[in-house]
Amino acid sequence: MKLARVGDVGRERPTVLGTDGLYRDVSSLVGDFTPEFFASNGMATLREANLSTLPVVEGRLGPPIARPSYLLCVGLNYVDHANESNMKVPDEPVLFTKHPNCLVGPTDDVHFPRGGTRVDYEVELAVVIGRRCRYLESPEQALEHIAGFTISNDVSERAFQLERGGGQWVKGKSCETFNPCGPWLVTPDEVDLDAGLDLWLDVNGERRQTGSTRDMIFDVATILHHVSQFVVLEPGDLVNTGTPPGVAMGMPNPQYLKVGDTMTLGISGLGEQRQVLVSA
Amino acid sequence: MKLARVGDVGRERPTVLGTDGLYRDVSSLVGDFTPEFFASNGMATLREANLSTLPVVEGRLGPPIARPSYLLCVGLNYVDHANESNMKVPDEPVLFTKHPNCLVGPTDDVHFPRGGTRVDYEVELAVVIGRRCRYLESPEQALEHIAGFTISNDVSERAFQLERGGGQWVKGKSCETFNPCGPWLVTPDEVDLDAGLDLWLDVNGERRQTGSTRDMIFDVATILHHVSQFVVLEPGDLVNTGTPPGVAMGMPNPQYLKVGDTMTLGISGLGEQRQVLVSA
Repeated sequence: MKLARVGDVGRERPTVLGTDGLYRDVSSLVGDFTPEFFASNGMATLREANLSTLPVVEGRLGPPIARPSYLLCVGLNYVDHANESNMKVPDEPVLFTKHPNCLVGPTDDVHFPRGGTRVDYEVELAVVIGRRCRYLESPEQALEHIAGFTISNDVSERAFQLERGGGQWVKGKSCETFNPCGPWLVTPDEVDLDAGLDLWLDVNGERRQTGSTRDMIFDVATILHHVSQFVVLEPGDLVNTGTPPGVAMGMPNPQYLKVGDTMTLGISGLGEQRQVLVSA
Repeated sequence: MKLARVGDVGRERPTVLGTDGLYRDVSSLVGDFTPEFFASNGMATLREANLSTLPVVEGRLGPPIARPSYLLCVGLNYVDHANESNMKVPDEPVLFTKHPNCLVGPTDDVHFPRGGTRVDYEVELAVVIGRRCRYLESPEQALEHIAGFTISNDVSERAFQLERGGGQWVKGKSCETFNPCGPWLVTPDEVDLDAGLDLWLDVNGERRQTGSTRDMIFDVATILHHVSQFVVLEPGDLVNTGTPPGVAMGMPNPQYLKVGDTMTLGISGLGEQRQVLVSA
């Protein structure tokens, strides 16, 4: 199943994408794709629904989940990205967060923050939590706690991240609009993690990032199992799993983003995104 | 006004503490003290209410706010605490976060995390955001965006914080129950920030922390103004403003917390808390 939220900002309707390519409004069945939806196994309700009887909606896509309680990110999860960042390849997952209000739709504008100078992009596989994760017993068990997968662009301001926070990354990661998300939440039965998913990102049509989730240092199951030993993840929470090499920060002569630039990005089977940088 | 949430875990009723010392259930007027309550100026509704006609409720106190979208913390905001932590006195606020699900009531048990060895306490003045904070123009303007003040115990696991995160503090800050909060949200008209608020914390009856908010490096208005240049704060968000000296980590022979220990703490005018450490 592919879930999406369609409509203007703040007025998105929860939908399921049918095999006919149409988005069917499921709000009458499940409300919205909130933490409560995931906690109450709303996914099962959708699987039983007769989509063809539901209204078709069109328009802008919002983020495929509504009001997650937490937005967690894994840093430096690809060896070549850790190297290009001049940071140590970590012994265990490095965790940081973004304000959940950073979430925007997959084709919404990204705001160039006031005072920003080194704005950067990061295509990432993102995991939506389906069941509460607390002291999970194994990575295998973690896989049962996943509602689905989507794409995040973990937009970053490197000067804020590395020079303004006393070592903590919050200021460079949580600027408004800094987490385009979507287009869809794709359920695990449609995603072959073992085969690996290809990731890519272009700036103004020029390829910048390519990678495969096969090259993650810590795979999805390992990440969730590990996190659950420290932090309880709730249904509907989002976990960004790190970015492959190719970010601007890693270039000999970094080509950071500027107002007017266009980012396009995608992950195999999870769709594509496109954002334009505008002034905040 | 003093707002509190009274009742069993997950079933708290929003209340206002009357001058008669009774908690009056205001759920019929405002629902709960959620982000929507603050965003819709629910506080004004409460000011006009005739409390004496409302039902009295008794029982456990929960955290005084429900489901904040974000829990932000300022680190190293008192010179003597930065020194005892062997960390540099910061040039600007150092920000980190906790999962909002860390919030528990002021007398709830604190869970000693599995694998934990160096569990520590931190009494802090906490600010509840009343209005959206985005690129605020001045510290003075920030004061108009405050719904009220409360107490946080920013419980920490120092090994998780400093040795397991590649420099990022998430793992040692976001363990379950690691943010006792309350007893009340006290509105700004009852809090004299300029005079300074006294903070204290005891472990098993022995004084460990004493301080005054006068000794903050960055005051409340400066913090919110600064944060708003990087992160948009939403109504109902909670901001912990840092701890005075006296934490276990700062001792020559650190006396970290152990299961069975009792923490008592308070801030002048904001009430007191008491927690017992139990195994997770």
